[in-house]
Amino acid sequence: MRLRLRPVDSSFYDLFTELARHLVEGADLLAEMLSEDADHASVAERMREAEHKADEATHAIVRRVNSSFVTPFDREDIYALGSGLDDIMDAMDEVVDQILVYEVKVLPAELSDQVAVLQRCAELTASAMPRLKAMHSLDEYWIEINRLENQGDKNHRRTLAKLFSGDFKAMEVLKLKDIVESLEEAVDGFERVANIVEQIAVKES
Amino acid sequence: MRLRLRPVDSSFYDLFTELARHLVEGADLLAEMLSEDADHASVAERMREAEHKADEATHAIVRRVNSSFVTPFDREDIYALGSGLDDIMDAMDEVVDQILVYEVKVLPAELSDQVAVLQRCAELTASAMPRLKAMHSLDEYWIEINRLENQGDKNHRRTLAKLFSGDFKAMEVLKLKDIVESLEEAVDGFERVANIVEQIAVKES
Amino acid sequence: MRLRLRPVDSSFYDLFTELARHLVEGADLLAEMLSEDADHASVAERMREAEHKADEATHAIVRRVNSSFVTPFDREDIYALGSGLDDIMDAMDEVVDQILVYEVKVLPAELSDQVAVLQRCAELTASAMPRLKAMHSLDEYWIEINRLENQGDKNHRRTLAKLFSGDFKAMEVLKLKDIVESLEEAVDGFERVANIVEQIAVKES
Repeated sequence: MRLRLRPVDSSFYDLFTELARHLVEGADLLAEMLSEDADHASVAERMREAEHKADEATHAIVRRVNSSFVTPFDREDIYALGSGLDDIMDAMDEVVDQILVYEVKVLPAELSDQVAVLQRCAELTASAMPRLKAMHSLDEYWIEINRLENQGDKNHRRTLAKLFSGDFKAMEVLKLKDIVESLEEAVDGFERVANIVEQIAVKES
Repeated sequence: MRLRLRPVDSSFYDLFTELARHLVEGADLLAEMLSEDADHASVAERMREAEHKADEATHAIVRRVNSSFVTPFDREDIYALGSGLDDIMDAMDEVVDQILVYEVKVLPAELSDQVAVLQRCAELTASAMPRLKAMHSLDEYWIEINRLENQGDKNHRRTLAKLFSGDFKAMEVLKLKDIVESLEEAVDGFERVANIVEQIAVKES
Repeated sequence: MRLRLRPVDSSFYDLFTELARHLVEGADLLAEMLSEDADHASVAERMREAEHKADEATHAIVRRVNSSFVTPFDREDIYALGSGLDDIMDAMDEVVDQILVYEVKVLPAELSDQVAVLQRCAELTASAMPRLKAMHSLDEYWIEINRLENQGDKNHRRTLAKLFSGDFKAMEVLKLKDIVESLEEAVDGFERVANIVEQIAVKES
């Protein structure tokens, strides 16, 4: 086993885990938003809270980096991981916002497949964060995220093809396309986070 | 009072102030562009000049960083501040461009609220730049910018809701949405610049 | 002549040249895609292969940086150049994808001008990569890329004006605007790469 030259400050792993747990909550709220008879205003309210808590966790990470003399891995990687997770929350929050502001009533069923991908990605990411400490079993995490991102990419193309198939009016396409792109941004965000984790693991190995 | 370990090269503050003054000019040109009976071609011509001058000020900053042995604050922060300010100019220039190229004749009144936010942000930013030297009274600057960005976010959502309310045809929405998004990008740009200034102040304190 | 303090690892230049050659292939495939009676599915298949090979070349560059004790120029510049080239490939791949997924049948003739700009940019970039080694004759490369990017910008505005001229229905505009923007992203990508090369040359001079 490798000797650690840097003391382990567990609080970083706790903060990352907390931040990632907010993403699980966000993805579950998206699933609720897409369900029939969803109370859009109530979901939006809870999403706003989740987004706010994610923001606070991100700021706590940044403050801790700034005030720590030693950090468990490179400062820039800690920033990148924190802001990478926060960006995903913002993208998920935007989906809810767009559905509300555009007053979209009917959402194509294809969107649910993408939200299922996001829920799976969020769960995997949240369970990978505590494993950063010992840097073990991370391979399966990023391999699975990459598989899910490929799946998400296929969903995205299929949904776009559907939007442009002639079943929707231009105005509906304009609204739905923004929503579909925010969902894809969230999926891409999970891949970016997995890449950051992979890079951290490579440096530490 | 804290001792300065680095000599103060005033020219950096002068260059940032000059660059920010071009943003004030740009925001005023946007206000003119939205006024009734505006001469769109003439405003576009003057915006192009302002954008060109902002570009030159940004390049002067980069050249000075590259040729200075010591800089008043971290090189990367100077780059970030310079390009952050320049990005705002580009976003404002794009608004004028979009109005011209899309031949938009009627602009919804909501856009003027957003341009008023931009004018206020630009004034605040330009008056904060010389204060970077002594690092004083910057708190009120970034608190006010954050308040304005929140205001801008509300304007943005209200304008989008208006665009999708059914009062506009899809083709008009397509044009106006681009313009509305460029305006929001400019507002966001001011918040990003305020964050960079805050980070510089934290490091120097 | 300047003394090299760092040994020259030729393989970096070879890898960058290989990566840039894939961009030439990509730009040529775009030209084929726009030609009358093009077999869209076949072009898409070959574009996917080119994109895959570009990905592999980029990863090879990253692996080599990570495993090299000394590098011919700054690690971060090598990353930036590699990912800058890869981003262009992604943008070109997206154009083909959008034409397929949106099932666009008729493409405005203006797009061909932009693809011609991309072909010229790709050729110039591919022939500049081996010259990174001796850092000579790079000025003419980035001056010409900047000229082409200006040309591309004019093409872009002209094409947008055409799209919004009233000749196209909102649905067609929605599809074509995405394609036109991906093309512009590719052109901008070549300018970004030229800027990275210029920065490397400035540091090394």
